[in-house]
Amino acid sequence: MELNHTHDPRTRSWLASANEAGCDFPIQNLPFGGFRKAGSNEAFRGGVAIGDQIIDLAALSQTDALQGLPALALRTCAGSSLNDFMAMGPVAWRALRHALFDLLREDASGEAVQALRNSLVPQLEAEHTVPSRIGNYTDFYTSIHHARNVGRVIRPDDPLTPNFQWLPIAYHGRASSVVISGTPFHRPMGQAMLPGAAAPVYGPCARLDFELELGFYIGPGNAMGETVPLEQAEAHIFGICLLNDWSARDHQFWEMAPLGPFLGKNFCTSVSPWIVTLEALAPYRVPFAHPANEPQPLPYLDAPSNRAHGGVDIQLEVLLETAQHRAKGAAPDRLSATGFRHQYWTIGQMVTQHTVGGCNLQSGDLLGTGTISGPTPAEAGAIVELSLGGTRDIELPGTGERRRFLEDGDNVILRGWCEKPGAARIGFGQCSGEILPARQG
Amino acid sequence: MELNHTHDPRTRSWLASANEAGCDFPIQNLPFGGFRKAGSNEAFRGGVAIGDQIIDLAALSQTDALQGLPALALRTCAGSSLNDFMAMGPVAWRALRHALFDLLREDASGEAVQALRNSLVPQLEAEHTVPSRIGNYTDFYTSIHHARNVGRVIRPDDPLTPNFQWLPIAYHGRASSVVISGTPFHRPMGQAMLPGAAAPVYGPCARLDFELELGFYIGPGNAMGETVPLEQAEAHIFGICLLNDWSARDHQFWEMAPLGPFLGKNFCTSVSPWIVTLEALAPYRVPFAHPANEPQPLPYLDAPSNRAHGGVDIQLEVLLETAQHRAKGAAPDRLSATGFRHQYWTIGQMVTQHTVGGCNLQSGDLLGTGTISGPTPAEAGAIVELSLGGTRDIELPGTGERRRFLEDGDNVILRGWCEKPGAARIGFGQCSGEILPARQG
Repeated sequence: MELNHTHDPRTRSWLASANEAGCDFPIQNLPFGGFRKAGSNEAFRGGVAIGDQIIDLAALSQTDALQGLPALALRTCAGSSLNDFMAMGPVAWRALRHALFDLLREDASGEAVQALRNSLVPQLEAEHTVPSRIGNYTDFYTSIHHARNVGRVIRPDDPLTPNFQWLPIAYHGRASSVVISGTPFHRPMGQAMLPGAAAPVYGPCARLDFELELGFYIGPGNAMGETVPLEQAEAHIFGICLLNDWSARDHQFWEMAPLGPFLGKNFCTSVSPWIVTLEALAPYRVPFAHPANEPQPLPYLDAPSNRAHGGVDIQLEVLLETAQHRAKGAAPDRLSATGFRHQYWTIGQMVTQHTVGGCNLQSGDLLGTGTISGPTPAEAGAIVELSLGGTRDIELPGTGERRRFLEDGDNVILRGWCEKPGAARIGFGQCSGEILPARQG
Repeated sequence: MELNHTHDPRTRSWLASANEAGCDFPIQNLPFGGFRKAGSNEAFRGGVAIGDQIIDLAALSQTDALQGLPALALRTCAGSSLNDFMAMGPVAWRALRHALFDLLREDASGEAVQALRNSLVPQLEAEHTVPSRIGNYTDFYTSIHHARNVGRVIRPDDPLTPNFQWLPIAYHGRASSVVISGTPFHRPMGQAMLPGAAAPVYGPCARLDFELELGFYIGPGNAMGETVPLEQAEAHIFGICLLNDWSARDHQFWEMAPLGPFLGKNFCTSVSPWIVTLEALAPYRVPFAHPANEPQPLPYLDAPSNRAHGGVDIQLEVLLETAQHRAKGAAPDRLSATGFRHQYWTIGQMVTQHTVGGCNLQSGDLLGTGTISGPTPAEAGAIVELSLGGTRDIELPGTGERRRFLEDGDNVILRGWCEKPGAARIGFGQCSGEILPARQG
């Protein structure tokens, strides 16, 4: 987590758009993703965001711009997924990021800089893909505020399960239905049990929800039977994205006893195009500890590095754009704003917990943090919390509409960024998805 | 489900071992798997079991033995996984099975028969691999006897959750830790909360269990947003294997509220080498219905074909071989014997339920039935049921040992077969796994 020259906020790029105030992708960020020209039949390949452009890593790998380890790392980014690059580990990730940084600096010049300049593709002309072949997707449940808020809806007397403060709770999600931001999906059909009913009904989800989450991708994996110690956990994390774990609450709450969510979650999960590396986030790492009067982690979930800087101070917001917003040309309304600093467990603890029994993580696996809700009602990361279980209207000032759950045509937009004095802004871009009407069978 | 000439029990093969009484792999079976010479560096490739031999499908595909669709199907079995073959669908599966059947008949002759004969590899000289790249592994919970038995351990007053009789309950499992029969694994470390304790303990699992299940592999998948109607569900199922969903009960029961099993299950799942096709099982299909005084399925989970022959009459048993059995040369002791005919939901209903909300299944996905327990105590498919939650000793006559849960060195062996007058025996072989001591970190 030590800072180096790539974190100096004074460094500017020869690409003007990267230097603009509020830009998510300055030279200090350099997040990785997968892209191609929009609407084309081109193969997807790796890219790095800089300003309003993308460095086409397949094109750059055809040049002599890089040498040595950075060139080897670059070559693994030329294919349709970043799994091989993720498997290379932090030394290779850093080597490539630093090499690109050096070529993008305002004062850089020469043939390599020209080669990089020739490989730029405007972000506006690109379409994205899920950046890894996700072998397994796991979703955690690590916001104590979310757990209490949702727990109150299901178990008013006992909202927090007794294990919450002892381990990062998680369940396995569905990898096949993880889609890239901007992919619309159909409102799911399914079973729900209405209050007081004798039999369930089959129909379109009536309580469709979003979940504001961060996702993180696994770099090098671990062998089956081996545990990743907490001190080493972050060397297994490639980087972080935004994630929306769409949820059909009526289906979920009916199906989930005793084995947890299944159809209520597996119809769609959206991820943002860009993966921000842990190295880029180094200036925003924050100390992490549980309150002294609460349970302290067991030794395997405790480590000095985790206490010193296990947290990440990422700011987050949720915007809603309805069909009426689009018709009126109105800006989306903000539903919520919160931050990852409130989370009860760190991403390192999640990796260690996931592997403590010997489960093997693989390069490219996706782990979600679970819904991120802050301590106040306005910081809730799901509409079921904001509407108090669907009992309270949420006002949308932009159109005068109201919501208790999501409606067809609603487009939910997650945004995330890090910002503070003395450090460059590190943005995550956005993660969006629009709800199409149910396909009734 | 109609019978054809490949189901005639009188047909014999020129391979004598295929005609022996009690053989799991007569000419009427022809299950698919992945194998190579044991201890070699050969590539894994597809194979078909016949008698005590394996047809090397990669070798056979190098010959002119087959023509047309069977030859095209054969070619997809030459690689390291059967995903492409599974994706071809029932017409192609049947074409290849029938072509192999015709070459294996007692009265077959000619160059093609000689080519097949030349491609045989003894099963004793082979090692196996998980036969598909499993994109996602889902485990169901569809034995009402298991649900009641386990429910009584956790919720004595209310063992069966209200949704059980309305939908096939399931959760997403871990694909990366699915291993082939015979792969040993370490007893998992993890957290458990002991009765009356104020804080959980970290240590080796103290309540290690097996789960007797069947697994089935997905053939053609469905697009995201599309549902597979029940009448078409079986066209999406390639075939059935044995599956042991090893479970760390102490870890599982502590972690699973509210999101279900995670580490308690994801350290290892074992599958048998051979996948028995649905066509081979046609003589053993049985009518299926819920008792008239119990909830009847909602229309989307009901279909005439499912009522007529949705069930499969597969007989199952669980054997335990301890280190002492091996030291004494004693035969394994039988822990349980039951059958799949007792299951509350059919494999077709599981596919339809999985896709009802639009979740996309992919070729090669693995679905488990959940623990298969029959109506009497001796038919329980997990040791937590047999030992009444660890309160009762299970005697092992072969060695005089006792068990409440599994111990290090225990090798659990699942076996399955179909047998009845007027039909050929269709065997599943076996699925085994030995428990190694915990790796204490």
